[in-house]
Order: sequence, then C-alpha cells, then structure tokens
Amino acid sequence: MLGIDPGLTRCGVGVVDVAPDRSAVLVHVGVVRSDPDAPIEERLAIIARGLRAVVDAHEPDVVAVERVFAQHNRATVMGTAQASGIALLVAGERGLAAATHTPSEVKAAITGYGNADKRQVQTMVARVLRLEELPKPADAADALALALCHAWRGAPAQAAASGPLTPAQRAWADAERLARR
Amino acid sequence: MLGIDPGLTRCGVGVVDVAPDRSAVLVHVGVVRSDPDAPIEERLAIIARGLRAVVDAHEPDVVAVERVFAQHNRATVMGTAQASGIALLVAGERGLAAATHTPSEVKAAITGYGNADKRQVQTMVARVLRLEELPKPADAADALALALCHAWRGAPAQAAASGPLTPAQRAWADAERLARR
Repeated sequence: MLGIDPGLTRCGVGVVDVAPDRSAVLVHVGVVRSDPDAPIEERLAIIARGLRAVVDAHEPDVVAVERVFAQHNRATVMGTAQASGIALLVAGERGLAAATHTPSEVKAAITGYGNADKRQVQTMVARVLRLEELPKPADAADALALALCHAWRGAPAQAAASGPLTPAQRAWADAERLARR
Repeated sequence: MLGIDPGLTRCGVGVVDVAPDRSAVLVHVGVVRSDPDAPIEERLAIIARGLRAVVDAHEPDVVAVERVFAQHNRATVMGTAQASGIALLVAGERGLAAATHTPSEVKAAITGYGNADKRQVQTMVARVLRLEELPKPADAADALALALCHAWRGAPAQAAASGPLTPAQRAWADAERLARR
C-alpha cells in the first residue's frame, strides 16, 4: 500500500505492508521534493519522476492519495491539487487502483477520531509500525497514515473476544486509548 | 504555440503558428475527452496520453495553460486543477516552457477587454485565424484563445502609422472594434 500526501515542495510517500489482522510493517518512507524557485512544469515533472521511482521500487497494489479541498490554504491549494493530480496519474499509468481520503477520514481511521492533531497521528503511526521515533517530516508521516487508513478501511473489526491480541493488535489498542485521552 | 484549456471531461487543445506581425494560422484544434464514469486515475492517464499525442504531433515551442482559481465552480475546480497539473507536467516532461494565463488575461489579449463573453472571444479567434465557423466546442476555442494570448503577449504593438495593415492586422483591428461594441 502506497500513501501519498501531495504537495509541490514536499510530497510525502509511505509504503506499508498490511496483514489481514491489520498489523503493518514499514516498507519505505520518504519525501519527494521540488525546488520552489523552479518553474511549475519542471516541479511537476520532478514529482512525477520521484513518485514513479517509488512505485517501480516497491510495486504497491493500491495508491492512496490525500483529497485536497478548495477551501483550505487558498494560496497553495492549487499547487497541492496539481500535485495530487500527478500522484493519481502515476497510479493510473501503472494500472494501479487509486483512492482518495480526506484528512478527517485518515485521522479517524488512525486515532479513532477525526479531529486528532498531527502529533497524535504521528504517535499512532509510529506505534502501529513499531518505529522508535516519530516519522518525519510530517508529510512522510501523513503518507504512512494514509496508506494505513486505506488498508484498514473496510477491514473487519478485530473483536477482543475472538482470541488473544497479537502484539500489533495490542499496540493498536494501546495507541487507540492513548489517542483518545 | 499550444494552448490547453484544462478539464477532466473535456480538455481543449489548440495549436497555432504565430508570425512576428501577430498574424496566426490554425495548425490543430481539438478536445481530449475522458469518461466521467471512469476512475479519476484512469481519466488523468487518458488526458496525459491525449496531450502527449498533440505535443508529439505538432512539436510546439511553448505550452500555455489556463490558470485555475479555487474560488470558481467549487464542485469541479479540483478536477480542473488536476487536469491543469497534467497539462503542465506534459510540457515539463518534454522540456517545453509552460505559461499560465487567467481567463481575464486571455479575454483582454483577444478582444481588448477582460470581461468579454465567450462568444466574443470565439468570434475574435475565428477572425484572427480566418475560420469560416466559430471553433467548437467552447473548450477548443478557449485553447486557441490561450495560445494566441500567449503568443501575442509582450509582442511589440503594431502602430497603424508604421505602414499599411497586413490582412491579419486588418482582421484584428476589425475584430477588436466588433468586440468592443
């Protein structure tokens, strides 16, 4: 599962391998950058090249991209929308299915509620993936959160009564409690 | 000069050959379409393929793309922004310079004032390019207008006093008068 947090200056990318029991392993995390002083057409070409390199290296089944809204951050929203178009294009050109999720959907999927702050999301992502540090920069963490959100979406809930929790489920349950504080 | 009026369902493309005296010849006009029922990643890939085909067939020096604003047509603006990102990407990947112009800039360049309606722009484009009919659909006409706008931008003004008008200059002067009525 490849998650992409679209942006012109920093485009976060995160690849996770998610098991049916919702446990997940970090495969790749990074940021595709483009120079803010470069012409827009060159920036988009650099982003496309960087995203294609990630797709070709990790061969995801699905690409999840953050949905961009017109009403947020007017000054940069058009650039973000263009970068999201490039992310979706790269998926389409490789014959991969793509999905978009809103920031609220991602926060709800990861922390249990849609108004979680960035640090709570990062903390949860780090726990679920058993990372020793919070994934940085925030764009990279958001990309991992997107990938997890999409992988978990529609997955059957893991009832605690169905058996002992796996380590990943325990981390998840702990993290959910933490995030709800 | 290639002009692109970005859109997901209809992406207008127009290629014109513009002489230093501002006279212009139509090289190609058309629309790249994508199925509104197809997934967004496939639609963007279809648009990219269609635009690349136009670039490869006509080898423009510059690509002019209409600038998209967040405040207009909220429901479709994100798709239009994504399509504009694809248009700019195609230019960047081919090493072509790209430029963006606002609808007002295009109208002002073509008709002499920024609040001209679509039909006035189409009429002017048809006159300048000596077309027997108005270019259709509107997206294709807008793409031609964009290409002309960019080609004419910064071109030295043709003072009537500097000599007899060429046929193209006469058509232009006639059309400007018509558009100002």
